[in-house]
Amino acid sequence: MTEKTTPTLPRRLGEISHWDMETDVAVVGFGGAGGCAAIEAADAGAEVIIFELAGGAGGSTALSSAEIYMGGSGGTRVQRASGFEDSTEAMFTYMMMCAGSLADEAKIRNYCENSAGHFDWLVSLGVPFKDSFHKERAMMCLTDDGLLYTGSENAWPFNDAATPAPRGHNLYVEGDNGGPLFMKIVGENVERRDTISVHYNTRALTLVADEHNRVHGLVVRIDQREVTVRTHGGVVLCAGGFVMNEDMVRKYAPRLTAGSYPLGNPGDTGSGILMGMGVGAAAINMQEGFITLPYYPPASITYGLVINDKAQRIINEDVYHSRLGDAILKDNAERHYFVLTVEQYGDYENASWMGAEVAATGESVEELETELELPEGSLVATLEQYNHFAERGEDPFFHKSPHWLQVMEPPLVALDVTPGRGSYWPYFTLGGLDTLPSGEVVDPLHSVIPGLYAAGRTACGVVRSAEGYSSGMSIGDATFSGRLAGRSAAQRALNENDSTHAA
Amino acid sequence: MTEKTTPTLPRRLGEISHWDMETDVAVVGFGGAGGCAAIEAADAGAEVIIFELAGGAGGSTALSSAEIYMGGSGGTRVQRASGFEDSTEAMFTYMMMCAGSLADEAKIRNYCENSAGHFDWLVSLGVPFKDSFHKERAMMCLTDDGLLYTGSENAWPFNDAATPAPRGHNLYVEGDNGGPLFMKIVGENVERRDTISVHYNTRALTLVADEHNRVHGLVVRIDQREVTVRTHGGVVLCAGGFVMNEDMVRKYAPRLTAGSYPLGNPGDTGSGILMGMGVGAAAINMQEGFITLPYYPPASITYGLVINDKAQRIINEDVYHSRLGDAILKDNAERHYFVLTVEQYGDYENASWMGAEVAATGESVEELETELELPEGSLVATLEQYNHFAERGEDPFFHKSPHWLQVMEPPLVALDVTPGRGSYWPYFTLGGLDTLPSGEVVDPLHSVIPGLYAAGRTACGVVRSAEGYSSGMSIGDATFSGRLAGRSAAQRALNENDSTHAA
Repeated sequence: MTEKTTPTLPRRLGEISHWDMETDVAVVGFGGAGGCAAIEAADAGAEVIIFELAGGAGGSTALSSAEIYMGGSGGTRVQRASGFEDSTEAMFTYMMMCAGSLADEAKIRNYCENSAGHFDWLVSLGVPFKDSFHKERAMMCLTDDGLLYTGSENAWPFNDAATPAPRGHNLYVEGDNGGPLFMKIVGENVERRDTISVHYNTRALTLVADEHNRVHGLVVRIDQREVTVRTHGGVVLCAGGFVMNEDMVRKYAPRLTAGSYPLGNPGDTGSGILMGMGVGAAAINMQEGFITLPYYPPASITYGLVINDKAQRIINEDVYHSRLGDAILKDNAERHYFVLTVEQYGDYENASWMGAEVAATGESVEELETELELPEGSLVATLEQYNHFAERGEDPFFHKSPHWLQVMEPPLVALDVTPGRGSYWPYFTLGGLDTLPSGEVVDPLHSVIPGLYAAGRTACGVVRSAEGYSSGMSIGDATFSGRLAGRSAAQRALNENDSTHAA
Repeated sequence: MTEKTTPTLPRRLGEISHWDMETDVAVVGFGGAGGCAAIEAADAGAEVIIFELAGGAGGSTALSSAEIYMGGSGGTRVQRASGFEDSTEAMFTYMMMCAGSLADEAKIRNYCENSAGHFDWLVSLGVPFKDSFHKERAMMCLTDDGLLYTGSENAWPFNDAATPAPRGHNLYVEGDNGGPLFMKIVGENVERRDTISVHYNTRALTLVADEHNRVHGLVVRIDQREVTVRTHGGVVLCAGGFVMNEDMVRKYAPRLTAGSYPLGNPGDTGSGILMGMGVGAAAINMQEGFITLPYYPPASITYGLVINDKAQRIINEDVYHSRLGDAILKDNAERHYFVLTVEQYGDYENASWMGAEVAATGESVEELETELELPEGSLVATLEQYNHFAERGEDPFFHKSPHWLQVMEPPLVALDVTPGRGSYWPYFTLGGLDTLPSGEVVDPLHSVIPGLYAAGRTACGVVRSAEGYSSGMSIGDATFSGRLAGRSAAQRALNENDSTHAA
């Protein structure tokens, strides 16, 4: 089947003969963003209906580790208890560097100033965080510790510019079970609120808009029947990204086709983005995505060296895994390897998610070089230089932290980390509808489209590239932006209702 | 002064009380694109008015070398006379590789199939090309030869995928005087046609559009007075790119801020693009631009090596100059040098446009390494490896052609080619309005905006990045796309006029 890649045109207001349902705020999608949007809208005094394609709540949030990137304002409760005072400025500097030239400064500023408050809000919902710090370098926290480093905060050049602090908050639960727990708590909060109703197994088909593309509601399909829904405040699109829509990925984000595994739920088909585009919304950053080589655990892989088919290193190997993956994808070479000593290789086979196969081993550097068909002398030279400085605790080439420097002595192992040759490259999209920090969707002129809101991966949020990603930025952004969008839509409904009463 | 970066909203049709002028086709901008649009529209039977901001014709085409990238169909007259049979498929393969994932396949296909015909059309206007081939590697042709290699056709990986052919056509004139001659000939052709009139010193202010954003004309300013112009066929925007609009460059194409010198004419302020966006047109590829380190002449620099601050090479140095420049900009390093032997350095001081200063010299490799503050042993290793293979005529690292391989022996010179440290980095923009091959402007839904056309750098054409640029692609694209847009607008006027008569 060819997936849809073209904008979904709205149903025109004039074509709607009657409304089957009426509400203040309609939320499309019941993942982390949609759930938080509904709760916040309800708590602001609005009536809310959530429409969810699947048979239950969850979305991609439930499939994730639910790490949540939060900090600033002197630190969250967990940060402070763990001995980290985190300044808003340090967090802002880090996140601005992460987003680089793609940054939305207003959105990042708002996020950093209010993310410690967001932590408190999550706690008020009942989301549990243990006041403990997980010291190991990990892709995700498999203990119940509440806090860990989940980005490149300790790596060059970030550690030069901003005081590092761990900001990845992990739910108080053993194993990789944060996502299901998080959505269970969000679901209970939704259930507890009488002013929120939920329709599962319901597909949002189109928005309803007038000739000026103001949004008045939407059409959904319930039990094979089209149902028209009028909204006083607005429609909040929280329908995920487009990673499951292969055609859309090829069209908008072709570099992600290097990936091996789309991360998301089956509903991540871009339907929300296409509905927004159909009423003139701007879709931005569509070319970017998270794409990564999850090379730790074991953390010992970090001691190794990533080289290309010229035996050149390409980056400091102590960065966040998607920053290293991004460097591989951007490097002007056709093959890449992770070169490791036997000790560094360690329990790779049992501990790793990376899936990279052993390309060659060598009792000497020369042997490994030959086995990998690298130019004669190239790997010998690279390792000689690396070792020369590693012995002194220095990396004048890529500024890898002394903590991760070790002299590389044979026997050596090389893992093939070339995309497409067996290693695991999960990916998802980072483009979406352009929104104001309020969650209001805008058109290419940056004018607000009245009645339309978006959050989570349907919108383009604070995180914009694999190069600058940190774990927890997606769930952090989704839940935070969901709340803002829900509140804005509720406020519009209340204003609207007031003026109706006054009239 | 802060330059305008927001779309220019149209004047609404209802606000126009009377029309001061009326024509079939209005062309905004009298450079290569606008001139060719006007000629083609007139020859199709339409009345045309050109509005030009400056006091005379020229635009950025007159400031350029006016190399024109043409070939395919078995070769142009000059290609065949010079012994090159150029197939459409080879040209198509090359241009598709150049554009990479940014390619507009339909546009490139159309260009390659019709560019030999475009050559004949230019000859019919009186544009002179000598049937001779210029053998040297040059940034531009300073002789009157008609043909030269102006891209990366002979360099890896292009030479592996497509039979190389020179496609840069140079006007029959000594020195770098192609641009003025080309625009003189275009100007004479415009003058010769009674159905074209030209208004100089005239600023196009806004489009005139109805509520559905159909374009009905434009408002221009002549002698401090606003003049309304009705168009039966359409408005053709040929107003150049936005390289002279610093704010717009910062907003849309921040990587170009690494450049040192904007290439263009003062009118390249993005005004045409902003007018198009104001009626809902899609602006695409806005992040991309041509940005380059013009490192040859002298051609001998090509024998040298570009290294970064880790003494790593980054690319085969025999590519087109903007492909090498792009590699420097994308490389994960803070400094870059061109390392040369004294012979390769040759008459650099007299012949070069690059402007890079000597960073260091060395009687030995070690001395140069120390002077450049490269990690100890790094440059020694890089040169040892390079020389080892260069001796055998091989470059297993970056596949530089054997033609450009030389053993590098001290004394050595290093030029500092780090952007921002003295070297010359000209740049211009490569984003613009999205158009069909016909020149019709489309909105983000890919629907045609009736009555609006664009060509040249106001549109986004066949050339999309510095990485895949070749000299002559801009003037080739501008003149070719101008013709198509002019013809389409004329055809719409004739259809319109016919139906008016019939009614």
